Amino acid sequence: MKVTLITHTPEPEKTIATAAKLCYASADIDTLMEGLTPEKVDGFLKMLTDIGHESPVEHVTFTFGIEGVSRSLLAQITRHRIASFSVQSQRYVEESHFEFVTPPEIADNKEAVKIYNEQMQSSIDTYNKLADILKEKHFKTFTELGDDEKTAKRKAQKKAIEDARFVLPNACATKMLVTMNARSLMNFFSLRCCNRAQWEIHELADKMLRLCVEAAPTLFANAGPSCVREGRCPEGKMACGKYKDVISKYKKLKEV
Amino acid sequence: MKVTLITHTPEPEKTIATAAKLCYASADIDTLMEGLTPEKVDGFLKMLTDIGHESPVEHVTFTFGIEGVSRSLLAQITRHRIASFSVQSQRYVEESHFEFVTPPEIADNKEAVKIYNEQMQSSIDTYNKLADILKEKHFKTFTELGDDEKTAKRKAQKKAIEDARFVLPNACATKMLVTMNARSLMNFFSLRCCNRAQWEIHELADKMLRLCVEAAPTLFANAGPSCVREGRCPEGKMACGKYKDVISKYKKLKEV
Amino acid sequence: MKVTLITHTPEPEKTIATAAKLCYASADIDTLMEGLTPEKVDGFLKMLTDIGHESPVEHVTFTFGIEGVSRSLLAQITRHRIASFSVQSQRYVEESHFEFVTPPEIADNKEAVKIYNEQMQSSIDTYNKLADILKEKHFKTFTELGDDEKTAKRKAQKKAIEDARFVLPNACATKMLVTMNARSLMNFFSLRCCNRAQWEIHELADKMLRLCVEAAPTLFANAGPSCVREGRCPEGKMACGKYKDVISKYKKLKEV
Amino acid sequence: MKVTLITHTPEPEKTIATAAKLCYASADIDTLMEGLTPEKVDGFLKMLTDIGHESPVEHVTFTFGIEGVSRSLLAQITRHRIASFSVQSQRYVEESHFEFVTPPEIADNKEAVKIYNEQMQSSIDTYNKLADILKEKHFKTFTELGDDEKTAKRKAQKKAIEDARFVLPNACATKMLVTMNARSLMNFFSLRCCNRAQWEIHELADKMLRLCVEAAPTLFANAGPSCVREGRCPEGKMACGKYKDVISKYKKLKEV
Repeated sequence: MKVTLITHTPEPEKTIATAAKLCYASADIDTLMEGLTPEKVDGFLKMLTDIGHESPVEHVTFTFGIEGVSRSLLAQITRHRIASFSVQSQRYVEESHFEFVTPPEIADNKEAVKIYNEQMQSSIDTYNKLADILKEKHFKTFTELGDDEKTAKRKAQKKAIEDARFVLPNACATKMLVTMNARSLMNFFSLRCCNRAQWEIHELADKMLRLCVEAAPTLFANAGPSCVREGRCPEGKMACGKYKDVISKYKKLKEV
Repeated sequence: MKVTLITHTPEPEKTIATAAKLCYASADIDTLMEGLTPEKVDGFLKMLTDIGHESPVEHVTFTFGIEGVSRSLLAQITRHRIASFSVQSQRYVEESHFEFVTPPEIADNKEAVKIYNEQMQSSIDTYNKLADILKEKHFKTFTELGDDEKTAKRKAQKKAIEDARFVLPNACATKMLVTMNARSLMNFFSLRCCNRAQWEIHELADKMLRLCVEAAPTLFANAGPSCVREGRCPEGKMACGKYKDVISKYKKLKEV
Repeated sequence: MKVTLITHTPEPEKTIATAAKLCYASADIDTLMEGLTPEKVDGFLKMLTDIGHESPVEHVTFTFGIEGVSRSLLAQITRHRIASFSVQSQRYVEESHFEFVTPPEIADNKEAVKIYNEQMQSSIDTYNKLADILKEKHFKTFTELGDDEKTAKRKAQKKAIEDARFVLPNACATKMLVTMNARSLMNFFSLRCCNRAQWEIHELADKMLRLCVEAAPTLFANAGPSCVREGRCPEGKMACGKYKDVISKYKKLKEV
Repeated sequence: MKVTLITHTPEPEKTIATAAKLCYASADIDTLMEGLTPEKVDGFLKMLTDIGHESPVEHVTFTFGIEGVSRSLLAQITRHRIASFSVQSQRYVEESHFEFVTPPEIADNKEAVKIYNEQMQSSIDTYNKLADILKEKHFKTFTELGDDEKTAKRKAQKKAIEDARFVLPNACATKMLVTMNARSLMNFFSLRCCNRAQWEIHELADKMLRLCVEAAPTLFANAGPSCVREGRCPEGKMACGKYKDVISKYKKLKEV
């Protein structure tokens, strides 16, 4: 898994402080912004956290490049609807030699990893065989319908891989660009940095959080699972039972 | 693929006509609604379509039960963000004997379908083998950490299938409840009833549209791909070249 | 202020229970729904609340008719973005004899209410005078540009009131249709039933909550300000200091 | 009206080209970005426009400072829900000497502007009188309930202006920070740069568009009302009848 912060709103914390200050002040925007020393920006961000005023943090967005994650992860992350996604298409990009993700618990077990790798190889072999059969079939049809060879070939390929991909496994690696505003990110970290989250999206969320903390340390000072903010776990009988370890883990993650 | 209209806002067309009339009238809401005979409701809905006033149709929602569709379709439909989804979980529901979707172009070819079915069988066998290995491994760990047998078994099963599902193919069937408001549905039909849409989500969109037309014929009278509304294709060089056939197809679909 | 529940998804609680059950079960949807006795529906809804699984409640929507509220309230309620609004237009509906909202603290004070009513009268008088001057001016222009009398009159009126409304006060009464799904409603109640909310939107939220409780008592059993759910106030130094009274108020509201 | 582009995603056009290219390519993200010369970025953006692929432009956001606009405009702009707003609060900021917006058609008419200005003065006088009466009333109550003088004064002031603002007119000037992504902005320009839009939000949309064009000329090359993109008007019988003038106006606006 490779995660990069491709870009983000410049001076995110100053932008948020401006937005917050504007709600309660009668001065014009230029004057507001001039008065915002780094110390005052910090003060405003802490105040926002204290009174739970979430809307000003929406003004800044962060764009991540994410590579080498599974299609299972894709199914989970795209359920976050206040976000923008551009994802490598299995309809357009042929997977003739796909990479795949191996769950650590499988990688860690000799017998399991052997079975797993064989299944991956069998998936890709079947994908290629099916793609070839379907390409030939469609090429014939398109040619008969009057397409020239080049066009028929292009159309046949697209139509073939659209169906061949049905055999590709969840493990298949994909890549994407994801943009979220800071409010949506806070919600994402709250759910996906939780100890109960599935390992792969948890790992992704941790990497994203670290990149956010580097770019805007005060803004993300309290970000993470609910227990980090509340000092206790709100999950009731579903609790992981280890909230103290979790709190200390995120304290460390933010120091790095 | 099985698609059912589970429920929808009662009297959807009257609700929309009330909303639309309210914007331009000074009467109170009770009076507005009393005056809305079926003929006037029809008139209002036609007027909305003519002037392109889309927001009143948001007030009504339609909830569909969708079964026997692939995980590929799931990846596509969940990209529609103005919608609510509840989806069968591969983390919680064990897939020991999963059903799968076969693309028609594969079903239609003896050689392809044979390879395809073997690959499906191989996926489920590997899934079961991996699940067993991981269950045993995790059961041992949880027992050693002090869990009683029943708890250890439950936790081991969940943790095992969470990873075993990485070998499951896109073809794997799933089921879901999807709710969209009529405005979001119009956009969905516009994109997914288009001749260029992938076959499975196209088939789903057609079935959903038919159910909508039965429930609210005037509201969905112009729904469908862009060419149905505009009498021409807006896709430029990506056009399918058959917009007249498409228009006549949707005319028929709405008659049934 | 008059608030009516115009319509809502039929059998809201059963719909939600179906959605929730589907996530964790392998049975088909018909079978799932058959098994859902009223007792089981209640059980599922309580379980959802306990484990904080919010997404299934999105499948049901509630549509309210709201009349006799101020334009100040409109400015607040339209900031809730996961909602659909149809609002009486000040650009299209002439306000020649507008109704207005009087804040209780003003109504309660002889001196204040006298000044207030005089200002309302002065607003409407000025509105009418400005509308007349502008209508005459625009009518002349449109006639000179070649419009016939009827067309010129209609266009002049619209253009005139579009500008005359600049003198209308926040107190000016409006009416609207608002549709929210249950998840967005929960958030709305959480913020607007809080003792710190402004009196008018607080009154509206209370009326909406009562209508919701009548329609779906189990679904909304825990709805209300955060203190009702958490048994304590999360507002920090902004707390109203009366959370016990608030909790008992909402307990009573739900009994009625 | 003063409109400033406070900040925006750096290199917006390159970010979008990266997102678009990623969907159709198998290379990793670093390699994709390296290959994106300014010419290729331009090419990608033109291609996106041609094939109507809108989602990649969501990755970039623009944040505007807007000052000296009316509360009428606020009511219109906040109806755009895919946007983030921070607005000067009439509950927290005392309006003892508010500025106001004068519609050009009123400013342009001696009789109208005289009546208008008198009404504005009367509004502010009444606001101040009501605020004073209510402050005194609430101060007494809070003191009797045990608050110290300073606290009672602060609480009385807030509670007083919350109600006094009911007399403030739509004309009252406000200021805000607004953030939208480029896709939402395209929709905003499409509706609000149309000749049929109300004059104030039309003026705002034109100013915002000009700022966008300066920051990202290729991205916004086709932005504006529908007629600019389609070369014809889609408004049916509501058409302004001057689409050729409109097209040439926006051509000029983009040259500056």
